[in-house]
Order: sequence, then structure tokens, then C-alpha cells
Amino acid sequence: MVPYPSKLLENAVAEFSKLPGIGRKTALRLCLHLLAEDTSEVEQFSKAMMEMRTNIGICSICHNLSDKTICDICSNDKRDISMVCVVESIRDIMAIENTTQYKGVYHVLGGKISPIEGIGPNDLNIHSLIERISKGGIHEVILALPATLEGDTTNYYLYRKMAQYNIQFSTIARGVAVGDELEFTDEVTLGRSILHRTPYEAGGRK
Amino acid sequence: MVPYPSKLLENAVAEFSKLPGIGRKTALRLCLHLLAEDTSEVEQFSKAMMEMRTNIGICSICHNLSDKTICDICSNDKRDISMVCVVESIRDIMAIENTTQYKGVYHVLGGKISPIEGIGPNDLNIHSLIERISKGGIHEVILALPATLEGDTTNYYLYRKMAQYNIQFSTIARGVAVGDELEFTDEVTLGRSILHRTPYEAGGRK
Repeated sequence: MVPYPSKLLENAVAEFSKLPGIGRKTALRLCLHLLAEDTSEVEQFSKAMMEMRTNIGICSICHNLSDKTICDICSNDKRDISMVCVVESIRDIMAIENTTQYKGVYHVLGGKISPIEGIGPNDLNIHSLIERISKGGIHEVILALPATLEGDTTNYYLYRKMAQYNIQFSTIARGVAVGDELEFTDEVTLGRSILHRTPYEAGGRK
Repeated sequence: MVPYPSKLLENAVAEFSKLPGIGRKTALRLCLHLLAEDTSEVEQFSKAMMEMRTNIGICSICHNLSDKTICDICSNDKRDISMVCVVESIRDIMAIENTTQYKGVYHVLGGKISPIEGIGPNDLNIHSLIERISKGGIHEVILALPATLEGDTTNYYLYRKMAQYNIQFSTIARGVAVGDELEFTDEVTLGRSILHRTPYEAGGRK
């Protein structure tokens, strides 16, 4: 046990250590850094955390994070609400948004079906997705879950649940990453990239 | 630029990224973790940071951290105040305290003399150390600075400044770490450990 010079420092270190990937040593380093900062800086830090936690909620349509009832993507009338991209987490939305290639809307499942981890369909935001689709107006569902056993299971479950509606299903393209060398690509990915080859367009594709 | 779903999240991520060793990706992971926690947990986290920053100050004698004017070590009457161990930082005090082998008191310099980084004697807590010594009652000063060029320079500066007082100077022992193999020890350390060998005590030393 490290003998802390003050109980207050010990508390702060304990709080930091609760965060994922932060051990006691890192927590101490961060606390000593904050102690060397102006009080106003630490106040700003604390305030930003509280404001974030108090005011950010979940979008009632797509389960994205938002400080409003309906998130900026769902409420943006320039987005195509007939196309829904199903993702595992909020971070996936941020990654796709970063590409600026997608103009549809999203649906965050909050996980994948995983019997091993005890996560069933009822633990995910699947009911609200089916409700969105049953209301009509959605023509395409893009399944953007990871290409793992759990991802595939979840894709299949969603497909079975929604097959009765007149929707086109698609998954994001899997293949050799742009700039990657063929010889260093794993065989499953390379195999898929040959099976699902795309027509050659002279002048390059976007 | 990652498009954050809320300005409040962006703020919180920016605040976390200011901490040393925390990049944007880690900051986002920590914020999403806090968002998934109960509000009371985040409140406790924020409060611990503010309480630490507001109430912890510097001991007026040794410059250790403390929530009182004089730290627990300086105010402990079981400690030998005639022996002062000079260290670079508060973390060094915690490391030495952890050994439970030292019963004297400390003095935190707050750095080392380093012309390259523009740190001179006046930037360190040297004046207050000399003041402590000039008051008398201190018989030994243990120099526990790192064995680097800057550490040696600082040691020599302190020695010159305090040579006029009747004090014994010592430095912490350098040698092969307990449990280390000789063949993997660097030659400077191994050389010192032979030069500064200690008398053999049958039954082992503490």
C-alpha cells in the first residue's frame, strides 16, 4: 500500500482508478498533474464531466448520444430517413460519420447477441428497430456489425425478424483495405474480396 | 475531425485530453464510460477532483503535499527531525515511505538544476532547505536525487551551499538491485557496487 500524503489525494486516485485502463500509478500521475494546475482548470474539468453526464441522453429514435430528445442526425432533414445503418455502438456512428460518405440515418443496437456473455436479443435495442421499420418508409437496412460469430448471429436474427417487411438488406463491403498489400491480407478477407469483386471503372472509383 | 454527437461530449473529451498521456481516443473511451455510469458516480468523481485541488496544499516545512499547513511526516514526533532526505518530487517520498525503512524527515526540491531545460537553483526549493539547516538541529542530509548529470550537478550545488554548516552528507546507495543477476547489470552500476562494497554480515543484512 502506497502511503498517500493526504486522504483527499487517496480518494481522487481511487476515483481515477475506477476508469477503464487506468491503474493506480497512472491515476496518481494524473492527480499530481491536476494538483499542479490552477484551481479554475480543475473546476472546468469537473464541470465538463458533470455537464456531460447530466445533459447527455439517448436519442429516442436511434439510441445515439444526444443532448436533445432527438439527435442531430435524426432531426437533420437533409439525411435520408429511408436508409437505416445498424451499428453496435455510438463509436461506430462517429467512425462512419467521419467518412462523410453516408447520408442515411442510424440505429445503435448497444451490443451483439452473445450467448457466451449472456446477451440475448432483449438486451439490445432490437424492439425499437423493428418498431421503426413496421411504421414503413424505410427501404434499406445496412447491417454494419463486426464480421465475427456474434456479429453474424445478430445479422441473421435481425434478418429473420425483419424479413416480413419489404426492405432491402445489405452489409458493408469486406475486402482488402485501401493501400494494403495482398500478400499481407488474411485469407478470409482476400477470399471474400475476390468473390465479391466489383466492376472496374476506368478513372478509379470514389 | 471526429464529429461528436454533442458539444458537451466534445468538451469533456477535450478536458480529458489535456491530461498527460491521454489522447483523443482514450479520452473518448473514458467519457463514454462515465456516460454509462450513474450520475452519482460521476458526481463523486468530479467532487473528489475538486476537493483534492481545493484542500491540498504544500507543507510549509518540507514542501510535501498535505491538507494541513504542516504535513503528517513533519508533524509526527516519532520522526527524527535531525535527518533530512532531499528528494526531487513528492512521488519519491511515497516510494521511500513505502519501504518503511526511513524514520527521518524530507525536503522536496521540486526538480533538478538543468541548464538545458532552463531550471536554475532559484526555481527549486533550495532557499528553504538552507534556511532549515541554518536554524540548527539537523545532523545529516541524505541526497536522494537521481544519478544523472542533473542530479549530480544539483547534489554538488547543495553540498557547496551547505558545506559551511556542520552536517554529515550522504547519498543513497547505488548498486545491483536485490534479486538482479550480475551479468545483466550495466557496467556503471556494477562498478559502483564493487567500489562501494559493504562488510559481509553472516545471517544476511536487512
